[in-house]
Amino acid sequence: MIEIYTVQEAQQGILRREMALEPEVPPALQARLDELFGAGSTPDTAVATILRTIRQQGDTAVRHWTAKIDRVELAQLAVDKEELGTAVSRIPADLADALRFAADRIRQFHSYQPLPNWTTTAMGGRLGQRVTPIQRVGVYVPGGTAPLPSSLLMGVIPAQVAGVPDIVVATPPGRDGRVPDVILAAAAITGVETVYTLGGAQAIGALAFGTQSIPRVDKIVGPGNLFVTLAKKQVYGVVGIDGLYGPTETVVVADETANPTWVAADMLAQAEHDVLATAILLTPSRELATAVQIEIARQLENLSRSDIIAISLANQSGIVVTANMDEACTLASAFAAEHTCIASANPQQWVDKIPHAGGLFIGERSFEVLGDYVAGPSHTMPTGGTARFASPLNVSDFVKISSIIELDDATSAQLSPIAARIAQAELLDGHARAAGMRVGD
Amino acid sequence: MIEIYTVQEAQQGILRREMALEPEVPPALQARLDELFGAGSTPDTAVATILRTIRQQGDTAVRHWTAKIDRVELAQLAVDKEELGTAVSRIPADLADALRFAADRIRQFHSYQPLPNWTTTAMGGRLGQRVTPIQRVGVYVPGGTAPLPSSLLMGVIPAQVAGVPDIVVATPPGRDGRVPDVILAAAAITGVETVYTLGGAQAIGALAFGTQSIPRVDKIVGPGNLFVTLAKKQVYGVVGIDGLYGPTETVVVADETANPTWVAADMLAQAEHDVLATAILLTPSRELATAVQIEIARQLENLSRSDIIAISLANQSGIVVTANMDEACTLASAFAAEHTCIASANPQQWVDKIPHAGGLFIGERSFEVLGDYVAGPSHTMPTGGTARFASPLNVSDFVKISSIIELDDATSAQLSPIAARIAQAELLDGHARAAGMRVGD
Repeated sequence: MIEIYTVQEAQQGILRREMALEPEVPPALQARLDELFGAGSTPDTAVATILRTIRQQGDTAVRHWTAKIDRVELAQLAVDKEELGTAVSRIPADLADALRFAADRIRQFHSYQPLPNWTTTAMGGRLGQRVTPIQRVGVYVPGGTAPLPSSLLMGVIPAQVAGVPDIVVATPPGRDGRVPDVILAAAAITGVETVYTLGGAQAIGALAFGTQSIPRVDKIVGPGNLFVTLAKKQVYGVVGIDGLYGPTETVVVADETANPTWVAADMLAQAEHDVLATAILLTPSRELATAVQIEIARQLENLSRSDIIAISLANQSGIVVTANMDEACTLASAFAAEHTCIASANPQQWVDKIPHAGGLFIGERSFEVLGDYVAGPSHTMPTGGTARFASPLNVSDFVKISSIIELDDATSAQLSPIAARIAQAELLDGHARAAGMRVGD
Repeated sequence: MIEIYTVQEAQQGILRREMALEPEVPPALQARLDELFGAGSTPDTAVATILRTIRQQGDTAVRHWTAKIDRVELAQLAVDKEELGTAVSRIPADLADALRFAADRIRQFHSYQPLPNWTTTAMGGRLGQRVTPIQRVGVYVPGGTAPLPSSLLMGVIPAQVAGVPDIVVATPPGRDGRVPDVILAAAAITGVETVYTLGGAQAIGALAFGTQSIPRVDKIVGPGNLFVTLAKKQVYGVVGIDGLYGPTETVVVADETANPTWVAADMLAQAEHDVLATAILLTPSRELATAVQIEIARQLENLSRSDIIAISLANQSGIVVTANMDEACTLASAFAAEHTCIASANPQQWVDKIPHAGGLFIGERSFEVLGDYVAGPSHTMPTGGTARFASPLNVSDFVKISSIIELDDATSAQLSPIAARIAQAELLDGHARAAGMRVGD
């Protein structure tokens, strides 16, 4: 069941952001870590071991860890081209149509994004920024309790729009040792030609360092479990990464006009992702709060993942009754949720009061599930309060800027003595000399 | 002295990118680590200790580590407002003018940068991306052998152009326990009101976690030494960071028309930064190669930092004779240097052949030293080959995107069954239900 809290209670509890540097490790996982990596291993040291061995031994280590961790002996690391090419025919036609439709909208959305490619001649010569695609990108697609073809679309398509010439996917094998057909079909729909049957830190290591059979990438994107996330952090700097993703979160800011049945359904959808998911309702309406609480209890019964939902509702989720909508917006922005939904008769008036949010779902017709699949923006969004400084995955994640400096002679001559003067203050006389000799000093 | 290499030698040597995960620790540093943090400490474990204690104890730990590492007892962590406000009057007037001139150009340059703020109504309702400034940013300004006011300008001004309302600076104390006046003057010129007398990992920890007297920031930017860089990596995720910076690098791509005196001066300027700096010339002209080698030997004698220069020239730098300019460009792009300079009578023809570079300095009048101080772009650029995926510090580093999803009723109704279909495939029936109930299922 979901609780109703006061603002004060919520601020001490579900709205409090912990800066978790060291994750809690459940006993079963600790036992497994001890078995595979030695007594007293932590997720971080286990990941370091996986990465080090992959860097040293390449494919052998990748196969070793896949056998140990995923209990799968891989004949080959990349999915056969034939198997990939025919995958769409192995999924239901209406599902293929839905994935194609979603892919088209995601592509259209990202194609509108402007990039900071510009030059000016107003500063003497030509100055500006050149934007070029990253050469080779790895998109990680998580496995887990069910295959997630939507995550493949949401990672691959913005990279394609950015012009990345070389995009590969890594995703863990299922229990049968294969990548599920629905993932392969999503890959085929985007046109991606390389899918590695690799998950966890071993996937990240293979992509970051390269192996005998896997060329290294320049950047790795996509969400994943704790081991994927720790591995991304450890290889950051060797390759680029998009961000570090934690459990998913939705905050609904609602006034008395909101439909409690819909609010409850949206919160249940959020909570079913996993036991660490967060669904929070912020509302000044005690009536809505109570109605949503009752609706959640009623709808929960019929959902297949009710066990997962019950845990996430009890642990991280809740309903908070605020003084007014302004306070609800202030709390939502401070929480800086991955998804923030505004359920109000006039939702636009609240948007500017929530500067920090990964995605803003404005009005009850723009519910979060549409954003998960088909609205257009990538569903890979900043979690854990990182929306204070980070953005949803977007086209700019797949390009990089080169600053362009092409001064005309007069401007160069004008700037040289100024550069020399600052260089002297920094005690860099080689700098001062290089500048001075351009103007005959 | 600087060596002349063949392409093959260079590819096995100076052009080879090592993926250094664990830095080499000189004996003197190891002794100091053992003394301060216990025998067998590594830079990484030392940084972890500093960060953990700052997180637990706040100001007390910040003062403790500053006393231990910088050998300075800080009366207060922030520079006095009066001392900051009057700093410009304590530096030479022509230096203040040079810093103001540089600041104006840096501000003008960044003000041209477009940001990906957009909406479209072409997809049914309103979809797009809202760009908002990050609330609070910390700019790290390194200390070291000389104060670097230019680094302050290059970090603070792009943040100001982005609209960051709350910008603070951290920079290590000098031997007298004070922040040098030239740094304070640069801060005052930009209008920054808060400068913390903090360096190293202790500065990064204080900014990332906050203390009793230092509010935590949302993002930390700027280059620093090994300990700053390791600390930035460790706090990444708690706060945003701009990147991980290693030693500075310049590659000059030159043809037979280049002026060997100028090329040599530019390489010497690069090499004087520190003993780990890299200066590489790629040229098909053996005549130029020899002339530059002679010029470097000649000019080196008169430079105050010749000891530093000699080491960086011998260890990481060199002159490489290529088959032609195309090969020089290919090698430069593969190296993906922080700075790539094109010295050629017609430099424009080579620009597109170098897709990977932090800054492109096009033509001999656009020499790298101007970029260090006054050309306009931030001199904080990606090092170590990270220009393959990373960008110079720019306005987009100081904003974040929120995806905007505000669908009209008809589009919402059209998309709901498609979302429900994919949700079913992902075994998320709470998602399917939330979508289905919008269209009466």
